[in-house]
Amino acid sequence: MPKILDKIQQANDIKKIVKEDWSDLAAEIRKFLLEKVSKTGGHLSSNLGVVELTMALHLFLDFPEDKLVWDVGHQSYVHKILTGRKEGFDTLRQLDGMSGFPKSIESDTDAFNTGHSSTSISAALGMAKARDLQGKKNKVVAVIGDGALSGGMAYEALNNAARLHTNMIVVLNDNNMSISENVGGMATYLGKIRTDVRYSNLKMSVEQAMLKIPQIGETLVSKVRRSKESIKRFVVPGMLFEDMGITYLGPIDGHNVSEVLVMLQRAQLVRGPVIVHVITKKGKGYRIAERYPSAFHGVNPFQVENGKSLSPKSGISYTEVFSKKLIELASKNKKITAITAAMPSGTGLAAFKQVYPRRFIDVGIAEEHAVTFAAGMAKAGMIPVVAIYSTFMQRAYDQILHDVCIGNLPVVFILDRAGIVGNDGETHQGIFDLSFLGSIPNMTILAPKNDWELEEMLSFAVDLQRPVALRFPRGTAYQELQEYRESLEYGKSEILIKGKKVALLAVGSMVKHAVKVRELLLADGIDATIANVRFVKPMDETMLMELSKNHDIFVTMEENVEWGGYGQNVSGFISKMHLPVSHINISIKDMFVEHGQVYELCQKLGLDPQSIYHEVMSEIESKRG
Amino acid sequence: MPKILDKIQQANDIKKIVKEDWSDLAAEIRKFLLEKVSKTGGHLSSNLGVVELTMALHLFLDFPEDKLVWDVGHQSYVHKILTGRKEGFDTLRQLDGMSGFPKSIESDTDAFNTGHSSTSISAALGMAKARDLQGKKNKVVAVIGDGALSGGMAYEALNNAARLHTNMIVVLNDNNMSISENVGGMATYLGKIRTDVRYSNLKMSVEQAMLKIPQIGETLVSKVRRSKESIKRFVVPGMLFEDMGITYLGPIDGHNVSEVLVMLQRAQLVRGPVIVHVITKKGKGYRIAERYPSAFHGVNPFQVENGKSLSPKSGISYTEVFSKKLIELASKNKKITAITAAMPSGTGLAAFKQVYPRRFIDVGIAEEHAVTFAAGMAKAGMIPVVAIYSTFMQRAYDQILHDVCIGNLPVVFILDRAGIVGNDGETHQGIFDLSFLGSIPNMTILAPKNDWELEEMLSFAVDLQRPVALRFPRGTAYQELQEYRESLEYGKSEILIKGKKVALLAVGSMVKHAVKVRELLLADGIDATIANVRFVKPMDETMLMELSKNHDIFVTMEENVEWGGYGQNVSGFISKMHLPVSHINISIKDMFVEHGQVYELCQKLGLDPQSIYHEVMSEIESKRG
Repeated sequence: MPKILDKIQQANDIKKIVKEDWSDLAAEIRKFLLEKVSKTGGHLSSNLGVVELTMALHLFLDFPEDKLVWDVGHQSYVHKILTGRKEGFDTLRQLDGMSGFPKSIESDTDAFNTGHSSTSISAALGMAKARDLQGKKNKVVAVIGDGALSGGMAYEALNNAARLHTNMIVVLNDNNMSISENVGGMATYLGKIRTDVRYSNLKMSVEQAMLKIPQIGETLVSKVRRSKESIKRFVVPGMLFEDMGITYLGPIDGHNVSEVLVMLQRAQLVRGPVIVHVITKKGKGYRIAERYPSAFHGVNPFQVENGKSLSPKSGISYTEVFSKKLIELASKNKKITAITAAMPSGTGLAAFKQVYPRRFIDVGIAEEHAVTFAAGMAKAGMIPVVAIYSTFMQRAYDQILHDVCIGNLPVVFILDRAGIVGNDGETHQGIFDLSFLGSIPNMTILAPKNDWELEEMLSFAVDLQRPVALRFPRGTAYQELQEYRESLEYGKSEILIKGKKVALLAVGSMVKHAVKVRELLLADGIDATIANVRFVKPMDETMLMELSKNHDIFVTMEENVEWGGYGQNVSGFISKMHLPVSHINISIKDMFVEHGQVYELCQKLGLDPQSIYHEVMSEIESKRG
Repeated sequence: MPKILDKIQQANDIKKIVKEDWSDLAAEIRKFLLEKVSKTGGHLSSNLGVVELTMALHLFLDFPEDKLVWDVGHQSYVHKILTGRKEGFDTLRQLDGMSGFPKSIESDTDAFNTGHSSTSISAALGMAKARDLQGKKNKVVAVIGDGALSGGMAYEALNNAARLHTNMIVVLNDNNMSISENVGGMATYLGKIRTDVRYSNLKMSVEQAMLKIPQIGETLVSKVRRSKESIKRFVVPGMLFEDMGITYLGPIDGHNVSEVLVMLQRAQLVRGPVIVHVITKKGKGYRIAERYPSAFHGVNPFQVENGKSLSPKSGISYTEVFSKKLIELASKNKKITAITAAMPSGTGLAAFKQVYPRRFIDVGIAEEHAVTFAAGMAKAGMIPVVAIYSTFMQRAYDQILHDVCIGNLPVVFILDRAGIVGNDGETHQGIFDLSFLGSIPNMTILAPKNDWELEEMLSFAVDLQRPVALRFPRGTAYQELQEYRESLEYGKSEILIKGKKVALLAVGSMVKHAVKVRELLLADGIDATIANVRFVKPMDETMLMELSKNHDIFVTMEENVEWGGYGQNVSGFISKMHLPVSHINISIKDMFVEHGQVYELCQKLGLDPQSIYHEVMSEIESKRG
């Protein structure tokens, strides 16, 4: 029974807890997290890792005046607990329940909405600059992981912070691990600091901080002036940051509340931007998660005793289908390489890495670089396959356009988690890719109806010799319709069932819904055609012309926003060719889509078979009327 | 009369020039550049700055086996001269003439197409990795300016280069100036290197390089082992790069061909990635450009003797209209701030900076950060106005979506150079913004018909309290139609002229074409309506319904690609509402648009009045037939 945690009912309540109780509070928070997340699923390792850090931040800051920006934001659970949202954990990530990410609409202590990586320093710097212009004095803190620090935006922000020289604190939460393995020069550098220093010269770092304190510091400075440079160069870690003009403090033990708190207070006295380097352990306090932090990064409901999942394994996922097929193709084609941006497990490329370690490159959280790096490889004769979730591919829009497509280079883009992704909510939905990719000349866009077709399309894509994107949804691969295996032909859709009057034109994941819609219509005596779109771009105009001869309703179906989607292109073609058909555009209207189960969200958005069926029936009736 | 330059007819010919003639060759190249660019216009300062550097690179590399990637690419003129393209300078940046940027299609010595900033290290690293996988031995060099180094992608690439540890050379072309003033921590750091070192310890740097040479180096290493760390820390600049795991050599004088060549040869002996830090002067050798490098960055035809422009000043530009109005609005509204990404002059914000220095922030070449920084400011109560060219805004698609629009924050996006930009060609056309911005929920998109309306829209936008984008073309503001001043109403288009049968629905810059199309149609007795779209998003559905009553042809007109443009949205609405109208969609079909004069390109693309008129007439005839 939590005794101390009960005392925390709202933001700032933690300040009433006496120092002696801090460690008990940390234990109670961990217990709470385990109990709740094991039931609902959610992000675990990262939250267990920041219990003490978050406590220290809450002891240090006054909410909501002070601003705390969490990078990515999946590690904000402890923050939510400490700001009066304990009850929210019963509905975590569920429809109309509490979000798994910071949301200003949920609490004014969530200073900034996040979800994607490497944005926190930029946002916090904007807040700090605004504060200065407004003559306010509030504190501004960004918390960023070592993984997120590989993102270029974080560097752009540090670069700009050094220039603006406004007061802000960047807590570098270093657990030597982004979602999976951290990679790159910065990671090596941080590793060097950790190894060399071994927390031993905290004292020296504090002295450094003292040097920067107004008045007191300056007298100290004059004394050590001649030796200062040597002290810095030899003893103080973080010279890379200091060289950029950012004060560096650390590294310190992120699981010691007092130590972190003292360092934050010192940091506040420094003029200009300060990095506080904090070492934490992912999964801290739950042995199984400490050992397998990646496996407990994002989890489904599980048994606390043994860490075993409570959700039954529900068949092979699209990710696995892609992974296996790519390994097979790579064995025949030596030109194939695989690139990801810090998501080897999530994209299925971890398996590829095992078989072809030299042909696998994880660039870290750096989508822009991933794409242009792939362009360079393609230009030099390889066939790079870049696997990045749909939502994160948004970050590389210009690189896809400018570096790959202008040169018409053979890069294969794999957009996993395309369409509605469910519990992660509005920051993670993959509902824009048909729009942003479609706008780019030279791009081909494919979407498979089932597991077999994903394999076929992947094989087709690596042979295409031009830019091509393949998008498929999160989760279990659809395994029906195995009897429909018409071979792929460039720009051609596949007619699955020939009917009349109503043509269901379904993109990828929507084919399975089309099958159900057809059943519902059949009960009303309507024999609808089902076309599996296959090529969202180029659109199969011949098929549309053909279908217009004996159909008077076209129903386009896609898990994408309406603006720039497949349906709109069909509309444009209908009006250009004066086709005598009505068009029902089933897509996502102009809105962000919140968290919830995929099927719930589909219902809410009218993407489910029942809703589509009703739309079709009402169109038929209005035609009759 | 160029004697030495005449000997260079194709790539690698420079190797036949004896060392004694190098400085004469440099002089001849400068003379050639001045003579040609003063006639055609183009990029000048940056090319004058890299004459010796490019010569050294061409002495060092064997084309086309070796790969040379120019960042941005506007500094590739000397490279073009040295690869047999002297004649191309007579048609530089003209329709069907030579591009002002590297183009693989133009020469196989142009290793990679560029135009946008900070991409070169990524592309070159991809080529280096491909080379390793293929067992080849060719050299790979990226040349990147100090300005481009503020882009996050460059850091992502360096980070990844350190990890992959493949052989490649990054030439850091440091002229202490990106297009205008360089900004940020990295710039300060480079400045420190320049000042502290003053080229004096070239010798020491070379010793450093020696240390990394296999065999020879290792015996040296053992000798200096105990003192090495101290030597590096105290004497060798570039520790920031060394800390990341990248060998640093320099700084050296970039106007000394021999010195650069020797350093490149040394760099080639180092294992793994090497940065060669070269100091150059923009505009070198042409005194007026040395003094005003920004003014001679991109130039129109000018008189060599005095640097004066030969093109008559053609009226106030949209940029100037924006600039003046923003200063006026900022005097009344203290919340307004102005943000740009290394384009204070180009966006007109230099004037704002003069008046409101504290409220102006140039983040450097860092579009992603610029947008999220603005989001942070907006969240903290300010109204940031982010002015970035349309083509560069592509880089911040995810930040606009994820950091601004999910939170529905009041950030005003100013997209200058929207639509066809002309001579810079395919990498710089602003023809995608309606598509990528339109796909984002919560976004409002405005386009003004003339100077007055830009002012009105800007005033409207800063008061809107939600995300809003304002796009206008490069060049002189349209100043006709001053009599049409219906005040702005959210989501409402403006009917300029009420006619019948044919409705011309024109977006921003296309309104002036619509006026001409109407004149042409009038001569045929057709009294067309002209609507000034104003709000591309949200689309004015009421107006479309209204117009459908007495018009049977809708002609949408926009300088944007068709996919996801305004026209497609109109098509979708027509088909949804079963409006009994034909729709002609005047937009850019699925292609990249090359360089040329704006009017030429418009003709080629069918965006000019004559072409549109013909389209309308043929539709009218087909309706009659």
